[in-house]
Amino acid sequence: MHDFIFPFSNEEPKYKQIYQQLKALIEQGNLQSNDSLPSIRRLAETLQVSRNTTLTAYEQLVAEGYIRGEGRKGYFVNVLEQVFLKEEETSLLPSNVKQVPPAIEIDFRAGAVDQAHFPLKAWRQFANRALQLEESFVYGEPFGEPLLKEQLVQYLLQARGVKCEADNIIVGSGTQQMLLYLGFILKHDFASVIVEDPGYLGARQSFKLNGFELEALPVLEQGAQLQLLSEMQSRLLYVTPSHHFPYGVTMSIQQRQIIIQWAKTVDGYIIEDDYDSEFRYAQQPFPALASIDHSRVIYIGTFSKSFLPGIRLSYMVLPKSLLHRYKEQFSEFEHNASSLHQLTMAAFMKNGEWTRHIKRMRLIYKQKMNYLVEQLQQQFGANITILGEHSGLYVLVKLHVQQTEEQLIQSAEKYGVKVYPTSPYFLEHLTAEPILQLGFSKLEMEDIKDGVQQLAKAWQLSSINK
Amino acid sequence: MHDFIFPFSNEEPKYKQIYQQLKALIEQGNLQSNDSLPSIRRLAETLQVSRNTTLTAYEQLVAEGYIRGEGRKGYFVNVLEQVFLKEEETSLLPSNVKQVPPAIEIDFRAGAVDQAHFPLKAWRQFANRALQLEESFVYGEPFGEPLLKEQLVQYLLQARGVKCEADNIIVGSGTQQMLLYLGFILKHDFASVIVEDPGYLGARQSFKLNGFELEALPVLEQGAQLQLLSEMQSRLLYVTPSHHFPYGVTMSIQQRQIIIQWAKTVDGYIIEDDYDSEFRYAQQPFPALASIDHSRVIYIGTFSKSFLPGIRLSYMVLPKSLLHRYKEQFSEFEHNASSLHQLTMAAFMKNGEWTRHIKRMRLIYKQKMNYLVEQLQQQFGANITILGEHSGLYVLVKLHVQQTEEQLIQSAEKYGVKVYPTSPYFLEHLTAEPILQLGFSKLEMEDIKDGVQQLAKAWQLSSINK
Repeated sequence: MHDFIFPFSNEEPKYKQIYQQLKALIEQGNLQSNDSLPSIRRLAETLQVSRNTTLTAYEQLVAEGYIRGEGRKGYFVNVLEQVFLKEEETSLLPSNVKQVPPAIEIDFRAGAVDQAHFPLKAWRQFANRALQLEESFVYGEPFGEPLLKEQLVQYLLQARGVKCEADNIIVGSGTQQMLLYLGFILKHDFASVIVEDPGYLGARQSFKLNGFELEALPVLEQGAQLQLLSEMQSRLLYVTPSHHFPYGVTMSIQQRQIIIQWAKTVDGYIIEDDYDSEFRYAQQPFPALASIDHSRVIYIGTFSKSFLPGIRLSYMVLPKSLLHRYKEQFSEFEHNASSLHQLTMAAFMKNGEWTRHIKRMRLIYKQKMNYLVEQLQQQFGANITILGEHSGLYVLVKLHVQQTEEQLIQSAEKYGVKVYPTSPYFLEHLTAEPILQLGFSKLEMEDIKDGVQQLAKAWQLSSINK
Repeated sequence: MHDFIFPFSNEEPKYKQIYQQLKALIEQGNLQSNDSLPSIRRLAETLQVSRNTTLTAYEQLVAEGYIRGEGRKGYFVNVLEQVFLKEEETSLLPSNVKQVPPAIEIDFRAGAVDQAHFPLKAWRQFANRALQLEESFVYGEPFGEPLLKEQLVQYLLQARGVKCEADNIIVGSGTQQMLLYLGFILKHDFASVIVEDPGYLGARQSFKLNGFELEALPVLEQGAQLQLLSEMQSRLLYVTPSHHFPYGVTMSIQQRQIIIQWAKTVDGYIIEDDYDSEFRYAQQPFPALASIDHSRVIYIGTFSKSFLPGIRLSYMVLPKSLLHRYKEQFSEFEHNASSLHQLTMAAFMKNGEWTRHIKRMRLIYKQKMNYLVEQLQQQFGANITILGEHSGLYVLVKLHVQQTEEQLIQSAEKYGVKVYPTSPYFLEHLTAEPILQLGFSKLEMEDIKDGVQQLAKAWQLSSINK
């Protein structure tokens, strides 16, 4: 029989400290299997605590299996193997201090939205109301909140020309997640998928994770080489028809018809990624591919560009032929997107705030886009070609220079400006001249101007040098 | 050359109506390929609108490829194939009216949380602040917001005994989603996985989607039959050690040691689903399996039970051996959980609100649990056995009757009470007597009492009948 004296700290309840001390003694082998422990009364007296305190500590140790009570005989240590945490302790040390990168003052990042014009008040109001709905306190509807789907049905019809029922809509938390889930349904019938080259990396990685082979459909600055479709093996096509990523070209109605016809001929599907069609500056947004034929098109939309990437809210419209299989395969899954955000967005849309927000942002982004293009032309003149300036939240800048993409990015960084590469988007058909991506959504006019001026200094390509 | 007269409505801009009318005429074949269109001036005069209006309409049609301008010659209809929306129109009709189920007054649903004691004020306050952070307006950190991960590191150490670095934590939007993603990393090394029988359906479906074979580990009311582990083929084990789903038993330290030892011997991994360990009523929560050996355990936690299922916030702690591969395979993925909720939860935790919330809810749920058990014992006496009453947000009720689970559920429904089956959780080892699941988290005391009284009437099993 042992007696124990512990110093108590004030930070945790005493019973917990007793429990922890005894547990440590057992785990470290100071108390051996079948050793007897002091009685509850005795331990209470030694440690000058109440019996209730020692009893609670013993009960916890009994419940976890460290010790056992044998009635009047008292408490004993159980037989335990020594397999406790010993390994890998070193891995818990703080990782090495990383090298500090140069300070970036102006970041032409594309994955962001304007913060200054966010409808904070309206969104807060609806968010606070959503927290009082009963729906917020249960697991939501597995494929999306009905209130949001109703609004999406109307929005898709009015803004994108897509006719669908609420039942065909699956709410998700992002394009990659939805493509990944969709892949489970499609991979049994399709071994490969045609992707745009250049094109969106997130989509490619989703397809690859599901084991799809990728076939590259070359896209030029003028658009996709659709005449090559007939030579391809795959019957599945992933495209960004309203705003090609990254070139920014839009498919004409003729091109849309060609691919719909192709899908019918090969008995395949088209996955239409309609990620930012709201922001088209020269004309109204074009109707979606899914508005032409919704039996062959899987439509994917998102609130990441048009509203807020951080709310992780997106949706897809499945053709009838896939819907049943999808719902069956994911019958035990909870939905992925916050139901609070879904309910808030539903109220936001229902009250017309959504339409107002899109109109306002289209104007703001149009101004920013025009200003960026103007600044670039002023600074660089004929040394660059600007691509994709009619829609979306970024432009591409093709530089007629000998330097590599990498060199241009690095010299920009030295001047405190971050610009982004496009070469990772190319599978096979890399362009000869470097093309950089410049997003502007989160930048103020002032920053756009400063940023471009810094770039001119960094690259020493000002139009005066021509 | 045609002339057009349209009646205008007041609902949409006139240019849009002109665009829509011409588009419809082209699509329906009323305007044929290469037909010439009236000039901008002429159309403006016929329709009595400004030239700017007709110009805008034509520009949109040109941009979408319906018509072309040929300089001074004017505008012409382009060559289009007739593949427009004709099929499947019938599928767009509203689906048949469904049969109305009887009104449920008291729902013993487990997938819910208490609404009355939700910390609405504090949560709102932190949520509103999160909306002003710059982090909320960009795509978040792909594997979770650093601010949240810091808090989780502390919480896991203090409450679950798990030592980890922020870098090892992956934030996700739910257990099934995380298991699915994890499956992509594990399936190359593991062809099958051992799952508890009975056990959690969502986990099984995730594994099946990734092509894993399932091996059933029988779990009895007293706990898992761990001695059978040595006979199994798989080297991967999915368990709920702190609160077995659905039986509610907890693994002792000996049992935990056995499975850790097993994982070492077979060079495998244990996936620990720690979904509601916060709510343990008789003792303090037991330390997690991952606190014993974090090199063999993939730890999965969630805010769905302890906070709110609708915010879709969960996390896993990956052993070093898997971390790199995970981050590589999902390098192009955005995270799945709302960064607004992540940032809000981080502030909520940092300010001590989280600990307060858990303490408060543990007390409230303990009272509800005790009351439900008391009511059940009073009404049914020896006709039932109650399982899992020491933790979690539901109990199991085993009925010593001849009726089937289905019959019991249906007769309860006739009395306005919804109770849930457990048979779907069983793979091979279904029990002889029916076991029902009764969740109580969202119910008031009054409802619990009424609900149990109604069940007594429905099942005619009151303890007086003994």
